[in-house]
Amino acid sequence: MSSPHGPTTDEVGYSCAMQTAKISIAYDPARLAACARAIADAGRKLGAHGLTPATSSNFSMRLDQAHAAITISGRDKGTLAPDDIMVIDMDGRPVGTSARPSAETLLHTQIYARFPEANAVLHTHSRTQTVASRLFAGAGVIRLEGYELLKAIAGHTTHEAHIDVPVFPNTQNMAELVAQVDAWIDAGKPLYGYLIDGHGIYTWGRDMAETERHIEAFEFLLGCELDLRRLST
Amino acid sequence: MSSPHGPTTDEVGYSCAMQTAKISIAYDPARLAACARAIADAGRKLGAHGLTPATSSNFSMRLDQAHAAITISGRDKGTLAPDDIMVIDMDGRPVGTSARPSAETLLHTQIYARFPEANAVLHTHSRTQTVASRLFAGAGVIRLEGYELLKAIAGHTTHEAHIDVPVFPNTQNMAELVAQVDAWIDAGKPLYGYLIDGHGIYTWGRDMAETERHIEAFEFLLGCELDLRRLST
Amino acid sequence: MSSPHGPTTDEVGYSCAMQTAKISIAYDPARLAACARAIADAGRKLGAHGLTPATSSNFSMRLDQAHAAITISGRDKGTLAPDDIMVIDMDGRPVGTSARPSAETLLHTQIYARFPEANAVLHTHSRTQTVASRLFAGAGVIRLEGYELLKAIAGHTTHEAHIDVPVFPNTQNMAELVAQVDAWIDAGKPLYGYLIDGHGIYTWGRDMAETERHIEAFEFLLGCELDLRRLST
Amino acid sequence: MSSPHGPTTDEVGYSCAMQTAKISIAYDPARLAACARAIADAGRKLGAHGLTPATSSNFSMRLDQAHAAITISGRDKGTLAPDDIMVIDMDGRPVGTSARPSAETLLHTQIYARFPEANAVLHTHSRTQTVASRLFAGAGVIRLEGYELLKAIAGHTTHEAHIDVPVFPNTQNMAELVAQVDAWIDAGKPLYGYLIDGHGIYTWGRDMAETERHIEAFEFLLGCELDLRRLST
Repeated sequence: MSSPHGPTTDEVGYSCAMQTAKISIAYDPARLAACARAIADAGRKLGAHGLTPATSSNFSMRLDQAHAAITISGRDKGTLAPDDIMVIDMDGRPVGTSARPSAETLLHTQIYARFPEANAVLHTHSRTQTVASRLFAGAGVIRLEGYELLKAIAGHTTHEAHIDVPVFPNTQNMAELVAQVDAWIDAGKPLYGYLIDGHGIYTWGRDMAETERHIEAFEFLLGCELDLRRLST
Repeated sequence: MSSPHGPTTDEVGYSCAMQTAKISIAYDPARLAACARAIADAGRKLGAHGLTPATSSNFSMRLDQAHAAITISGRDKGTLAPDDIMVIDMDGRPVGTSARPSAETLLHTQIYARFPEANAVLHTHSRTQTVASRLFAGAGVIRLEGYELLKAIAGHTTHEAHIDVPVFPNTQNMAELVAQVDAWIDAGKPLYGYLIDGHGIYTWGRDMAETERHIEAFEFLLGCELDLRRLST
Repeated sequence: MSSPHGPTTDEVGYSCAMQTAKISIAYDPARLAACARAIADAGRKLGAHGLTPATSSNFSMRLDQAHAAITISGRDKGTLAPDDIMVIDMDGRPVGTSARPSAETLLHTQIYARFPEANAVLHTHSRTQTVASRLFAGAGVIRLEGYELLKAIAGHTTHEAHIDVPVFPNTQNMAELVAQVDAWIDAGKPLYGYLIDGHGIYTWGRDMAETERHIEAFEFLLGCELDLRRLST
Repeated sequence: MSSPHGPTTDEVGYSCAMQTAKISIAYDPARLAACARAIADAGRKLGAHGLTPATSSNFSMRLDQAHAAITISGRDKGTLAPDDIMVIDMDGRPVGTSARPSAETLLHTQIYARFPEANAVLHTHSRTQTVASRLFAGAGVIRLEGYELLKAIAGHTTHEAHIDVPVFPNTQNMAELVAQVDAWIDAGKPLYGYLIDGHGIYTWGRDMAETERHIEAFEFLLGCELDLRRLST
């Protein structure tokens, strides 16, 4: 997946980091341009559905083994342009730019490190996600079961299954959040997405289309859970 | 599921299966083109209203006595193009294509078999439909009565009526689902649409416009039932 | 307000009733064209906000003392074209057309008869309106008070007021509905809009802009009432 | 409130008040044009999200130390054009126009007086805002805490904070409302936005983008509070 040869031209307006020292860090600008378009398109759809209020949320795609494209901090995620997307390395450091990536960049690179098949990550921040995270923070997990739409999550072929979505405590210390996610995975528990308390959801997929399907499915299923809780009492 | 003989002409971009063997299976490509447009237009509207999350839902139209046009499995139902729609015979087998139809194809062909006046079938998957199906799965039926909008369901001319919408248990075994629907009809009970537990609704009509009206009406009436349940307790 | 001289040409595709007998019934086709545009525009907005599901709802405007323009029965109110609007006289009879007006035409002509300043009538059918009508049908009235938005209803300049919205029992007998509305007015009670049980709302105004403002305000205020009822218990 | 001297030139369609008497009151018409565009754009977005029903809401921007641009009373805030925006002085008086500013103009000029860094003010009127104001009017304040989105409010860098949003009693007497806001500020309490009972919210920011972010964040957070109240009982 590496990009051994750096770009020679950069017609689409992206920075291309060329280091003359020992290590040559480069990525394919055409791949970046395609990823930036996919990220902006996803943002437009998610923003239109109210999943990215007040410049919240962040999105990324894996460019190659060493790089990812990610949204710059503080931008309106519903109206992203190519220059709202920057390149980071897999330690979350900016590459070829002085822009500041999303504060939660390390949660994205963690997903690329732990899930080799993941090529896109979407973090959104809907009212449903925030409310569900608050209500289930005490339990630490939301169990989704009995829904046909579980089949929208990759690897599921029947509604006779369940998916546990963990709700991790919120912290501004990214290392703590990363450790919480690692602990869940290291315990051998399946993970398709997770909530952070008072915050939103993270999910991922093989490509942006699958990741968008996952976001849509989790948003839908969490909304059903809230409705059922309202109606069953 | 294979299609041994490919199309010979395809002016409108659709496959037209011509078999040289004993049985000649053919359909009118102009009718198919018109149905594909009607299906895509309906999908666009239903998708925009959130009734088709995460590539769920499936739609069909009767082409003639032996064929129907139906959405291919796994496509985004809000952005359907002509090549997202395929032809099946009335046993649910693909005709002139290697594409895979919606998993629930037999529920569509059942409707065409049991309701000769039905020429379009819409299956959607809204949050309201899913939540209502979960809440009323135990009762097995939702009775809708006292609503002026009952008049939107074909054959109803007054609000002083009721419509019973059955809620069938979900199963990935289509033959079981088909049998449940058959049992309801064979018992002589009127049927204008049905829910599947944890899933969505099926409804149909003489043409796509009437079927869209039925979907809109059921979505509205189920939403009112949930609201009244929330507010009356 | 009468239109003594009939149209000589009819470029915009409307019928013009010319009677050679004693009474000449005619209306201004330019006024009709303008009203049809205003009705279609209002329908587009109301439809986009979900207030006209499943071909429900009907809209009209006063053309002159003897005529009104009204939506033809059964059309999709969110996508009205000029030929979805017809002319009626003030007894609700079609003029110059064989089209069938909305079933509730007499509720429109009643408003023009009882409120000389009213020149537009909107009847919509939102989920909020239907649910509110069901919940308050027993009480027969919904009292709206303490809201700043009461000032959006013509004649109100402070939130320190209240508006009583009656909820009349539903019936398919229009004469009964008309009698209920007459009885309320004849009792000297103010009337700015009314609900019909299991159905929607009627409101009116000096022109279409004011009437749209009234619909928006009532929809908003009824929604607040339902939310407060949910949250206060 | 009269404007004795009209504009002499008006290239961008705005009035520019030039007084030949002792005090020269003038503002930059290019700044006004830019502000009018920003206000109209914000209104379009807020209107599309249902935050400005029935011609409610009002918006302004500071032009310079002595002037602000503000929406004219009674216009549809979702479809503002340049001539729906007028100039006022910092006492809320019209400048160079006979138009009537929003009834709550003094709440805007108060914000510019009390918060020198504020250059834009948005007052909206969503159902969520109105319902929250009614529910918390007795307490007089809504405490928002534990939300990641608190970081969207300028000056906040962690979710481990709280923001108190006061709910002031409604009155048609603007001087009373102004005095309530002054009392809160004079008591040394932080203020990022406030609700008026049965009405909407006021918030502000350094520019329109920040102010829009604040409105989005408060609308979201108030919505979460209502949902949690519904679900926690």
